[in-house]
Amino acid sequence: MRFSQARARMRSSLIRELLKLAARPGVLSLAGGIPAPELFPMEALKAATRRALDRAGPAALQYSPTEGHPVVRRWVAERLGVDPDWVLVTSGSQQVLDLVARVVLDPGDPVVVESPTYMGGLLAMNPLAPRYRPVPADAQGLRPEELPGEAKLAYLLPNFQNPTGALLAAERRPAVVDWAREVDALVLEDDPYGHIHFDAPPPPPLFSHDRERVVYAGTFSKLVAPGLRIGYAVAAPPVLEALIQAKQAADLHTNILGQTILAELIEAGELAPLAEQVRGFYRRRRDRMVAALKRYLAEDVAFSVPGGGMFLWLRFPPGTDTRRLLEMALEEGVAFVPGEPFFAGEAYPSARLTFASVPEDAIEEGVRRLARAYRRYLEAT
Amino acid sequence: MRFSQARARMRSSLIRELLKLAARPGVLSLAGGIPAPELFPMEALKAATRRALDRAGPAALQYSPTEGHPVVRRWVAERLGVDPDWVLVTSGSQQVLDLVARVVLDPGDPVVVESPTYMGGLLAMNPLAPRYRPVPADAQGLRPEELPGEAKLAYLLPNFQNPTGALLAAERRPAVVDWAREVDALVLEDDPYGHIHFDAPPPPPLFSHDRERVVYAGTFSKLVAPGLRIGYAVAAPPVLEALIQAKQAADLHTNILGQTILAELIEAGELAPLAEQVRGFYRRRRDRMVAALKRYLAEDVAFSVPGGGMFLWLRFPPGTDTRRLLEMALEEGVAFVPGEPFFAGEAYPSARLTFASVPEDAIEEGVRRLARAYRRYLEAT
Repeated sequence: MRFSQARARMRSSLIRELLKLAARPGVLSLAGGIPAPELFPMEALKAATRRALDRAGPAALQYSPTEGHPVVRRWVAERLGVDPDWVLVTSGSQQVLDLVARVVLDPGDPVVVESPTYMGGLLAMNPLAPRYRPVPADAQGLRPEELPGEAKLAYLLPNFQNPTGALLAAERRPAVVDWAREVDALVLEDDPYGHIHFDAPPPPPLFSHDRERVVYAGTFSKLVAPGLRIGYAVAAPPVLEALIQAKQAADLHTNILGQTILAELIEAGELAPLAEQVRGFYRRRRDRMVAALKRYLAEDVAFSVPGGGMFLWLRFPPGTDTRRLLEMALEEGVAFVPGEPFFAGEAYPSARLTFASVPEDAIEEGVRRLARAYRRYLEAT
Repeated sequence: MRFSQARARMRSSLIRELLKLAARPGVLSLAGGIPAPELFPMEALKAATRRALDRAGPAALQYSPTEGHPVVRRWVAERLGVDPDWVLVTSGSQQVLDLVARVVLDPGDPVVVESPTYMGGLLAMNPLAPRYRPVPADAQGLRPEELPGEAKLAYLLPNFQNPTGALLAAERRPAVVDWAREVDALVLEDDPYGHIHFDAPPPPPLFSHDRERVVYAGTFSKLVAPGLRIGYAVAAPPVLEALIQAKQAADLHTNILGQTILAELIEAGELAPLAEQVRGFYRRRRDRMVAALKRYLAEDVAFSVPGGGMFLWLRFPPGTDTRRLLEMALEEGVAFVPGEPFFAGEAYPSARLTFASVPEDAIEEGVRRLARAYRRYLEAT
């Protein structure tokens, strides 16, 4: 069979493969990136689904406009302070990454990414063969002074980043947008976690600093439920029109039953209390994980306490073989994601843990097993 | 803003623009391509949705495997006589066209399309800058003897094609597959309408003639409802693996609530009676439109009676300006789609009419208005 050059640049997500290992009986998985199913508002969703089918009738099942459901567009627009015409509802926010990559990137184009960055962003961009320009980050997020002299696109997750949990500091945000203006780069601001803040809400998005130059990507996956596959792009008209045309060709429109259910939740005022509940729920899990890490692993491994999101990032001493460590961890009955696939450039020994989908009472045991594996690893090497 | 070369090759579907005109009050639209909403099995869908949320619970709303829901995959696999591992559930069959284009096409690659062909197929392939090799069709479908000496991909709709309604004759099918083998082309067999047969079921699909070389694309849009956005690709493992990886990067997976609802319909045995109902319903509308065309337009305009599907294709005498005719038709209160955008190469004067979504009693009036517009057009030119 003859494939395209793009196909040769695609690969399966390592995480998918790992999750198969983590699904073995007896393994506590700190490896996933999925929301806690206990948080899905099942009763509200059932009621909203009934109302959606009763009130909208066949319109909840018919072909519908590519742009998206007006109630969903309006909710997003109000949140970002723009006209609803600036909003495109997508098949999850992953689709925003794919559509932006396609309308912006030609082979060889320079693309700024954080180091490390969200693996799914790399998977979306890889087929276009960009030249990645990874920019190092510290506890305050990406370091603006390290931004390169050229870029066509900058893919950034300023809020409680996947995988590190880092928040881009307020004072660094205008600097990033200024840089984008200077080098004439489009910024893709991916913000799946901004609403899951534990201590204080994040600073205003990059989008608020320059609405013409920043595309904002959001999702309902971590607020309502990911299986609906509903995300959104917010962008100025020329960019949004390009994304709409790309989406028409890609899948015509986002499933309208899911959008209509979401519209019912929005109109019933369910989202704000839900967001509050999500924050409290994950805050407790974060606290448990941080306490366990301090107790069992702090001597050997560096981490910072994430102020939101679903992830916690561990840095191991130079030379640590995290694949080998993962094998030992699986033997001890715990799984994590080695950091390497999150780097577009040079990686350092690291691991992503999630506290989101692990039962609260199992978090300590999971970390204890990881610490045990790490001690065994140190002894064996 | 700096866009990609692919973006410059994207455009909005002419049909979308036309449908806005056709939505004016008083206009009978023969222009759309949407199923009749009266056919959506609302009560069965409501019950299936309740069952989906009650029985699957949070699993109907969580991240789920890219490949798709096992019940849906099994149903498709049984229909095509393959293992369920050969099936990928997609966000509508439009996504199959997009994914296949991306894993197969590099700029300049020769691509066989029927002349005319489905516009959405062209929209999906255009960004990859293929060299189209349009192959003429007659009442028996594409003429195999006109197939070119080279092609990387052949995009074909053998059953009740959109826009012409033509069926690729049984005796031509092996010839097409033989040709594909000779020139080493992958065949993308797009079959949204095969189950909507009025007189006799279509011959076995191209896929059945060579399962390694043909990718089969299907959809539940015209059998259940399009707003669920559930379609599927069936392909041999190396091709399917490429499509799965491309889909992971594109949107992770197809919305699982819709898939779970569909699985409930499948397990309740609802699809076979539904298919029977769909056929009878559209058959009556086809008959009404054919009768009206014979009565009002047959002298001037050529058409063949479609044996299935949703469309009827008119050929006008050479030199007819169908855009001008459309303007006059809108003045008379009827809309159709001019044939031109369905051609990748040279077009001839033509129009696509749908009988699917027009109330049965309005079909005759719609055709009468079109005939009146056509007479006015002839008088004015």
